[in-house]
Amino acid sequence: MPMTVRKFSLPEIFFGRESLKYAGGCARILGAERVFLVSDSGLEKAGWVEKVFEILETEKLDWFYYSDIVANPRDFQIQKGARLYQEQGCDVVMALGGGSPMDAAKGIALVASNGGTVHDYEGANRIQRPLPPMVFIPSTAGSGSDISQFAIITDVRRCVKMSIISRTLVPNISIIDPLILGTKPRDLIISSAIDAFSHAVESYISRIAFPFTEVQSLKAIDLIIRYLPRALKEPCPDVLEQLAIASTAAAMAFSNASLGMDHALAHSLGGMLDVVHGLVHSVLLPPVMRYNLPACEEKLADIGRIILGKRRRTSRSTALAGIEKLEENFASLKIATRLRDIVSDRSTLPQVCKTASRDACLLTNPRSADWEQMLEMCEEAW
Amino acid sequence: MPMTVRKFSLPEIFFGRESLKYAGGCARILGAERVFLVSDSGLEKAGWVEKVFEILETEKLDWFYYSDIVANPRDFQIQKGARLYQEQGCDVVMALGGGSPMDAAKGIALVASNGGTVHDYEGANRIQRPLPPMVFIPSTAGSGSDISQFAIITDVRRCVKMSIISRTLVPNISIIDPLILGTKPRDLIISSAIDAFSHAVESYISRIAFPFTEVQSLKAIDLIIRYLPRALKEPCPDVLEQLAIASTAAAMAFSNASLGMDHALAHSLGGMLDVVHGLVHSVLLPPVMRYNLPACEEKLADIGRIILGKRRRTSRSTALAGIEKLEENFASLKIATRLRDIVSDRSTLPQVCKTASRDACLLTNPRSADWEQMLEMCEEAW
Repeated sequence: MPMTVRKFSLPEIFFGRESLKYAGGCARILGAERVFLVSDSGLEKAGWVEKVFEILETEKLDWFYYSDIVANPRDFQIQKGARLYQEQGCDVVMALGGGSPMDAAKGIALVASNGGTVHDYEGANRIQRPLPPMVFIPSTAGSGSDISQFAIITDVRRCVKMSIISRTLVPNISIIDPLILGTKPRDLIISSAIDAFSHAVESYISRIAFPFTEVQSLKAIDLIIRYLPRALKEPCPDVLEQLAIASTAAAMAFSNASLGMDHALAHSLGGMLDVVHGLVHSVLLPPVMRYNLPACEEKLADIGRIILGKRRRTSRSTALAGIEKLEENFASLKIATRLRDIVSDRSTLPQVCKTASRDACLLTNPRSADWEQMLEMCEEAW
Repeated sequence: MPMTVRKFSLPEIFFGRESLKYAGGCARILGAERVFLVSDSGLEKAGWVEKVFEILETEKLDWFYYSDIVANPRDFQIQKGARLYQEQGCDVVMALGGGSPMDAAKGIALVASNGGTVHDYEGANRIQRPLPPMVFIPSTAGSGSDISQFAIITDVRRCVKMSIISRTLVPNISIIDPLILGTKPRDLIISSAIDAFSHAVESYISRIAFPFTEVQSLKAIDLIIRYLPRALKEPCPDVLEQLAIASTAAAMAFSNASLGMDHALAHSLGGMLDVVHGLVHSVLLPPVMRYNLPACEEKLADIGRIILGKRRRTSRSTALAGIEKLEENFASLKIATRLRDIVSDRSTLPQVCKTASRDACLLTNPRSADWEQMLEMCEEAW
């Protein structure tokens, strides 16, 4: 089957230990005089926010600091940030953090430049005017927001996580310094790595995967399988660096090949029930893979081969054994593996699935699903 | 060993059959009103230049057409193009062609915006001011200039191919339409694929290779080994598309990990003796790989495994058997395999090697070499 036309775009990437020091120079090159820096209290406590202040100072840059955001960032936090960006006369947006500060920073850059409210841009390709330059510094090796075309913002009134997808949401520069990962607590190492793993799997089996994304997906899967256990035993820079490579590779893939049902459901659970994104995938990814098996047996066998370290007799048995082994791996991490571990009220599931059925990520899931099929899967995962 | 900081950047890529139709819209988005189009007589004859005129017309864009360039494009052709770009009031540079029109277009964009002559920018990172927007449409699945930070221009007075390397030489948009490859003659299919193969090998074993480039290098090697023989039997769109994917993947890698001794010598041969770039690699790549073996046995074994379809007992034997098989493959294509096939006067070799020893590509070759070591290798390849 001929490929239809695919688009592939990435930010400029600086990758490596101590690359953080380039943050000021990068902002300067993009025209900064006053940087709007978005981060959160976790990174303040770890000392990284102060470190960025110093780097901006060295470059003789002024800044305004904004941290009034939470996990699953809210629409009203974006609106406030955008107002402050303008009032403070900022010219470049910088984010330091995991998915929440980075997605919030994208929303702020969007509303500050395109006006209206963040809701106006829900969906794909609805942004008309250019955004201010963005320099992003990821701190979790998970979300990939520093690489991707996605921003996920919660609409508080509707209890929905909105997916905003546009080429213009790719930051200009991503600075990935694995040393920042050294201050991550164990549970954040796990949830970030599993988020990245889910990006890699869903982008690999996506309907619009193509060779430039597929190689990065497989690289990410391989690195996470090999290095997550080591990172939990001894989170040294060498090992954390491999997880940062994995997360970045997975983001290169999903930004351009999109995601699937696991993420559609994760967004729905995050919006309706405020479930933390990184906790969803250990519960839902294996059943989603099993659901997708009839549509992408060969590709799930490729993944199974990496998880198992070898092929079984058939593609189907390799794929299935891989999914089983993945479930064992998750269980050994003592994290949530059943839906009841993260959702308190089972009666919310139909609404969760109805909302997920309208999520943009579901469009690229390899096997079609309506909300009832997703509900059936969720009931089995309960 | 910790990785030092690596930079990774790519153009925005449109890949797929009939993606050519986006050329006008892309130029328009980048602010075009009058496009400076660079191409050559081969593409005129095949009808593709006319096709681009039509696409620009549909988008109501004006253009100036420049084709006064040759293989191994010359410095004076760049200067003339840059003068015309300004006189004609153009605002976007578009290239349609193989490495020569694309590199020439980069040189023209550079001189038109930064002044002086193209010689002023020889080497790495010597460009100060931004270039006009560039939309490139490759026609050969080989050079990768539509993706890369490189432009190679011949200094006629010194008989040297100058490497100009800068982030700003990455085009804004690369439009890769495999249908354009359908009009390529057999010998151009071969030489382009071998050029791309050499990009993939040299970037994979480069001193500054890193995971994001390595996966693309290996993908390119695999695709060329599998699809070049098929393309020669039956150059149908499905197969040519795979070679276009390979060439693009190889370019993603070498643009960010650079190249090695084979390219240093190829540039020297091109500048001194006007040897066509695509004919050099079947002669020099195998001996260069053999020379590099002590420095990168494992990596050459990875390549050997792909060429052979399996590993031998040791890394060293896998690597060596892979190189031998590669030589057999080249010989079966009835192309040059000895240096005497492409160089008439053996006494030029010392100067060829001295010039190559100053080429920027040699810096990233995995094993150091002075000009005498290169000469020894060239004598063996004679």
